[in-house]
Amino acid sequence: MSQKYARADGRSIHQLREVKITRSWSAHAEGSALIEFGNTKVLCTASFESDVPRWLRGQGRGWVTAEYAMLPRATNTRNSREAVKGKIGGRTHEISRLIGRSLRAVVDLESLGENMITLDCDVLQADGGTRTAAITGAFVALVDAIEWARAEGHVRKRAEVLTDSVSAVSVGVLPDGTAVLDLPYGEDSTAGTDMNVVVTGSGEFVEVQGTAEGSPFSREQLNELLDLAVTGCERLAEIQREALAK
Amino acid sequence: MSQKYARADGRSIHQLREVKITRSWSAHAEGSALIEFGNTKVLCTASFESDVPRWLRGQGRGWVTAEYAMLPRATNTRNSREAVKGKIGGRTHEISRLIGRSLRAVVDLESLGENMITLDCDVLQADGGTRTAAITGAFVALVDAIEWARAEGHVRKRAEVLTDSVSAVSVGVLPDGTAVLDLPYGEDSTAGTDMNVVVTGSGEFVEVQGTAEGSPFSREQLNELLDLAVTGCERLAEIQREALAK
Amino acid sequence: MSQKYARADGRSIHQLREVKITRSWSAHAEGSALIEFGNTKVLCTASFESDVPRWLRGQGRGWVTAEYAMLPRATNTRNSREAVKGKIGGRTHEISRLIGRSLRAVVDLESLGENMITLDCDVLQADGGTRTAAITGAFVALVDAIEWARAEGHVRKRAEVLTDSVSAVSVGVLPDGTAVLDLPYGEDSTAGTDMNVVVTGSGEFVEVQGTAEGSPFSREQLNELLDLAVTGCERLAEIQREALAK
Amino acid sequence: MSQKYARADGRSIHQLREVKITRSWSAHAEGSALIEFGNTKVLCTASFESDVPRWLRGQGRGWVTAEYAMLPRATNTRNSREAVKGKIGGRTHEISRLIGRSLRAVVDLESLGENMITLDCDVLQADGGTRTAAITGAFVALVDAIEWARAEGHVRKRAEVLTDSVSAVSVGVLPDGTAVLDLPYGEDSTAGTDMNVVVTGSGEFVEVQGTAEGSPFSREQLNELLDLAVTGCERLAEIQREALAK
Amino acid sequence: MSQKYARADGRSIHQLREVKITRSWSAHAEGSALIEFGNTKVLCTASFESDVPRWLRGQGRGWVTAEYAMLPRATNTRNSREAVKGKIGGRTHEISRLIGRSLRAVVDLESLGENMITLDCDVLQADGGTRTAAITGAFVALVDAIEWARAEGHVRKRAEVLTDSVSAVSVGVLPDGTAVLDLPYGEDSTAGTDMNVVVTGSGEFVEVQGTAEGSPFSREQLNELLDLAVTGCERLAEIQREALAK
Amino acid sequence: MSQKYARADGRSIHQLREVKITRSWSAHAEGSALIEFGNTKVLCTASFESDVPRWLRGQGRGWVTAEYAMLPRATNTRNSREAVKGKIGGRTHEISRLIGRSLRAVVDLESLGENMITLDCDVLQADGGTRTAAITGAFVALVDAIEWARAEGHVRKRAEVLTDSVSAVSVGVLPDGTAVLDLPYGEDSTAGTDMNVVVTGSGEFVEVQGTAEGSPFSREQLNELLDLAVTGCERLAEIQREALAK
Repeated sequence: MSQKYARADGRSIHQLREVKITRSWSAHAEGSALIEFGNTKVLCTASFESDVPRWLRGQGRGWVTAEYAMLPRATNTRNSREAVKGKIGGRTHEISRLIGRSLRAVVDLESLGENMITLDCDVLQADGGTRTAAITGAFVALVDAIEWARAEGHVRKRAEVLTDSVSAVSVGVLPDGTAVLDLPYGEDSTAGTDMNVVVTGSGEFVEVQGTAEGSPFSREQLNELLDLAVTGCERLAEIQREALAK
Repeated sequence: MSQKYARADGRSIHQLREVKITRSWSAHAEGSALIEFGNTKVLCTASFESDVPRWLRGQGRGWVTAEYAMLPRATNTRNSREAVKGKIGGRTHEISRLIGRSLRAVVDLESLGENMITLDCDVLQADGGTRTAAITGAFVALVDAIEWARAEGHVRKRAEVLTDSVSAVSVGVLPDGTAVLDLPYGEDSTAGTDMNVVVTGSGEFVEVQGTAEGSPFSREQLNELLDLAVTGCERLAEIQREALAK
Repeated sequence: MSQKYARADGRSIHQLREVKITRSWSAHAEGSALIEFGNTKVLCTASFESDVPRWLRGQGRGWVTAEYAMLPRATNTRNSREAVKGKIGGRTHEISRLIGRSLRAVVDLESLGENMITLDCDVLQADGGTRTAAITGAFVALVDAIEWARAEGHVRKRAEVLTDSVSAVSVGVLPDGTAVLDLPYGEDSTAGTDMNVVVTGSGEFVEVQGTAEGSPFSREQLNELLDLAVTGCERLAEIQREALAK
Repeated sequence: MSQKYARADGRSIHQLREVKITRSWSAHAEGSALIEFGNTKVLCTASFESDVPRWLRGQGRGWVTAEYAMLPRATNTRNSREAVKGKIGGRTHEISRLIGRSLRAVVDLESLGENMITLDCDVLQADGGTRTAAITGAFVALVDAIEWARAEGHVRKRAEVLTDSVSAVSVGVLPDGTAVLDLPYGEDSTAGTDMNVVVTGSGEFVEVQGTAEGSPFSREQLNELLDLAVTGCERLAEIQREALAK
Repeated sequence: MSQKYARADGRSIHQLREVKITRSWSAHAEGSALIEFGNTKVLCTASFESDVPRWLRGQGRGWVTAEYAMLPRATNTRNSREAVKGKIGGRTHEISRLIGRSLRAVVDLESLGENMITLDCDVLQADGGTRTAAITGAFVALVDAIEWARAEGHVRKRAEVLTDSVSAVSVGVLPDGTAVLDLPYGEDSTAGTDMNVVVTGSGEFVEVQGTAEGSPFSREQLNELLDLAVTGCERLAEIQREALAK
Repeated sequence: MSQKYARADGRSIHQLREVKITRSWSAHAEGSALIEFGNTKVLCTASFESDVPRWLRGQGRGWVTAEYAMLPRATNTRNSREAVKGKIGGRTHEISRLIGRSLRAVVDLESLGENMITLDCDVLQADGGTRTAAITGAFVALVDAIEWARAEGHVRKRAEVLTDSVSAVSVGVLPDGTAVLDLPYGEDSTAGTDMNVVVTGSGEFVEVQGTAEGSPFSREQLNELLDLAVTGCERLAEIQREALAK
């Protein structure tokens, strides 16, 4: 993996952008984090409710779900609000579902009890990697919401609700064939292959979503991308631990 | 107007909360401001487009419009997203229209030329007075967007697009009959009369919206409230000038 | 307040159009009134239900709400039906909410008991002032619905459900600066400032909604408009009393 | 056809309710009629537009369409507004389409030129037979709109836009087997078979819609119903002619 | 009824297209049939649920309802999906309601008990007569679902849930005045009068829906069409019996 | 990869279900295929249009898009129609987008010219693997539509519109840790990890979507799954070739 490619922001190919997590950003939510991956800024809030959706009632288990959205001017040109259009686009749905699944992969729903936590991930500013920033930040908000619920007596004192941590990162293949970690918008829009990988703190995969935008990718490239992603998520797990240690 | 009432945050009845304007908060928008009225935080972005809605084409005039929204967990309990519900509520519509009208009152649409500026006012955190904070912050974003458009040649060099500044504040009558300025949520929810007043830099009215939530109000109370509002907006106009001077 | 302006319909500036209230227009509703302000015709029906919305159940209080709508050809050019467009516009929402609030201001919801009254205000023909005609007519329909409910035993015999009467009128400033009462469409569309005022029978304010369409208005003009509105609502209260006396 | 059945309103089985047509009810529409079939009251307005829907442009032909709706409290219990529900029900759609087809059957769309007429049929009060009243009244509004268009020069002076008149009536079989004409709600809700028949002034059929609500009906009963309907429509055609002669 | 007209597919005017019923096409549904009227192919599935809609609960009666839809490319040019457009068109609604009513006419809802059967009729390929094929096929699926329910004990052993069979066919008047049975798309699109007739196994009418697309039709033509339809439905009833006998 | 697990249908872990492709199933579409993966049946139609969406006009390139849907009773219990609910669910959106992307990966949009092909994939019966069957069948329909367009002169004679073939298959990890190919519903619903892999005829990846439903998966398991998927898609590519050779 020789570095032939010079990235616009001077990073090496296996380096994350500067990641910053501001915990408890919100005065109201049970858990919250403003996460920044370079210029990408996502506000993640966790809302606790001591009830579950109707289809889950009476089963002694809880639920964790997520909703992702983007402010209209988070991007370079303004997008119409989905509320104004009256329907949620496919991309929004897809990312909301991905975030929810990723978090549930490290939650023991039985230990959560008949409670629900909703993660709202609102992109205030977008510069690539919004969904992976959202997952990484939402995990921090989730931890705080669970601790809040424990303190309030909604969750048993010693219940091990979380089985691991979880974070996510994007990787991609640039037009010259270089595989790179954590793509800002400029790289992402030209990448031939784009992949989002969700990894637990112990290094196992929760989601692997690789897409050939231009030409298909080989097994070798896939392996290279997975290596980069695992390295990136290791570093993100550390950053999460530091934020939660404060 | 004797001060019989002690406000929870120690302010006098004719005192604003701490108001903070962070200009150019957004990396992408042509103008932007994060405005804080105490714990109320609204992100205002101005998006410039060198085109107008179809019904206005060919008339040599521009348009200024606004969209207001609240993040689901901006408030103490989570609200469903309007995009998920598939329709925009009456309150959201009403406030969006108010913001648009208030800004247009100080814009010379002929001087703007066939251009449109959309103000997005997204409430990141709510503690009363979100619509008045939105108007006050949106004006700052609007100024910057107009200057951007002038610099880019979309607006004539010497066109006087803005005829004045505009800001807004809430006033209300508390249960004991005291009229107060700039109500946080705690006061707002108990106030018998609630009034939002939009005032230009030169002290004239753009909007006066007073509502008796409980018992009707007298002409005398109305006058007392208008006095408070005018004072508050004078102070807000100063704060806007300071922010724009930086 | 010298009369420099000659109104198209020959009225003086502080004179209402001919107001006509046809009580019990509908064969089905518990209360109803067809109200005419000149060429503006609004059919107001009050529907009684011995139940309340879910969020109010078990609190021993009732609810009064309103829905405003316009027939597609109530105006000079046909408007698309909101049912066909699949959503209700901001203006419709805003007016429905205003009517509901205005009526609730004179209703003692505890005395109403766990009952709901819905006022439907359908504009059959529009010529300015439809929202103020709707409020004035809806009050008459509301009185009849409450009396029906009392006769049927849904409301206690001596319960004082209504604390006062309520009516509304529009006032505005014409391009030459004249303040006038009860504007038909022709005047309304040219008025610089437009204000809707809702006043109780005892002369107190329920709503004051003033908007500068063109240039902002001064405190002096505001006072002049309020004077006109109070006079107009005094006359409307008389007309309501006469209609209800029949 | 012996009369074994005594109708609640004293009519004979082949007698219409009192039918009243108030022409030019609306101050704004190009043609209008308030039609009453007993307690059923439908306001029909015809809106002329010198344009056609996109799919018809450039073909030298016009279009006639209709929209039917019911005020929420036109019936004995209040129905939710379709605009509030955000979609139009199947029954509304079905009736709107029926009215449009019925009118087009007597219009020469070539002679109409590239113009469109929209008939809005709003039921102000319902007591059975609202769709048949709507067709009968809409025809009168249509005639006036076409004459208006001719006078304004939108339609050629001698163009024979209308090829005939059209009216409609309901017929049904009561539980005891009696076939009756023009059913009010009370009869309609118990009728085993319900049929709406649209007939031209020269006695030919435009629509025959018969439905067995309870038990199926025989060929003999069908013939009896058609006889009644033809008689009813002959009388309606006379009433239309009288209204248009004024 | 002399045969002056040569049909494109060589049939005589009173002859059905080849009708084929493939029973139990679906592996999941309680009853199902793929019905073909020539090139028209409709998949009918019957879904049994041991519950009724809320408005029917506790009355000891069941319900039978239907939903009709067309695949986007069932027709010669692709139609947008109604799910994508976000609303169901008038035609779809109208046909769904027709199918439901037609089937309920031969069901004794008391004998069905508090159970609901939903017939889904999805047009896989369209060549005229889709609604009549749907009714004819749905009846077969309904029979199987009722027998399934009986076998499972949801319906009493000897309950006579079905009072008769039901089938439907289209008839129409071609431009040269010939009345024909079972029109494929080619004939249907040129027919002056179009009629759908729903007939029970014992030869009585459930629905008669005749529409003059071009010029109105006479009583004589109506009779000719009804004769053809009755003959067609007799043959369809035989084909249903044969399919159910297998 | 020892075979410890006995599959309910007797297949070995690296064996596909019986795959059957019925080409030109539809009489109307420019290309079509009914594809069966065991009990999963998906009707794929390709609709050609010699125009492109507005955002693509004038760029000399074409577009390929897809819409996926399920008949309400394709599954074991009936699902509400999305058209009735008025909105498309997240899962539907996600799969439609996946199919479109997968096909575009093997299409040279420049060679297609300013034309659009829409693939409708309607699941008539579901038993796991509907999205992978849809992609595999849609490719066959796409080939035929392109050949139709070539024959009709919409596409240049020698344009190499397709750069490769494409097919897809599901793989998963069963509760006992066995990795298996092509999961029917019974296996899919218990699988801990579920992965859909889209592979070109030359063995490169277009999409890799792996999801841990229960516990996260290791790099080793990921490799095992990818091996199975590649084998499966090789076999599917053969079956596609055979179908297209007929």
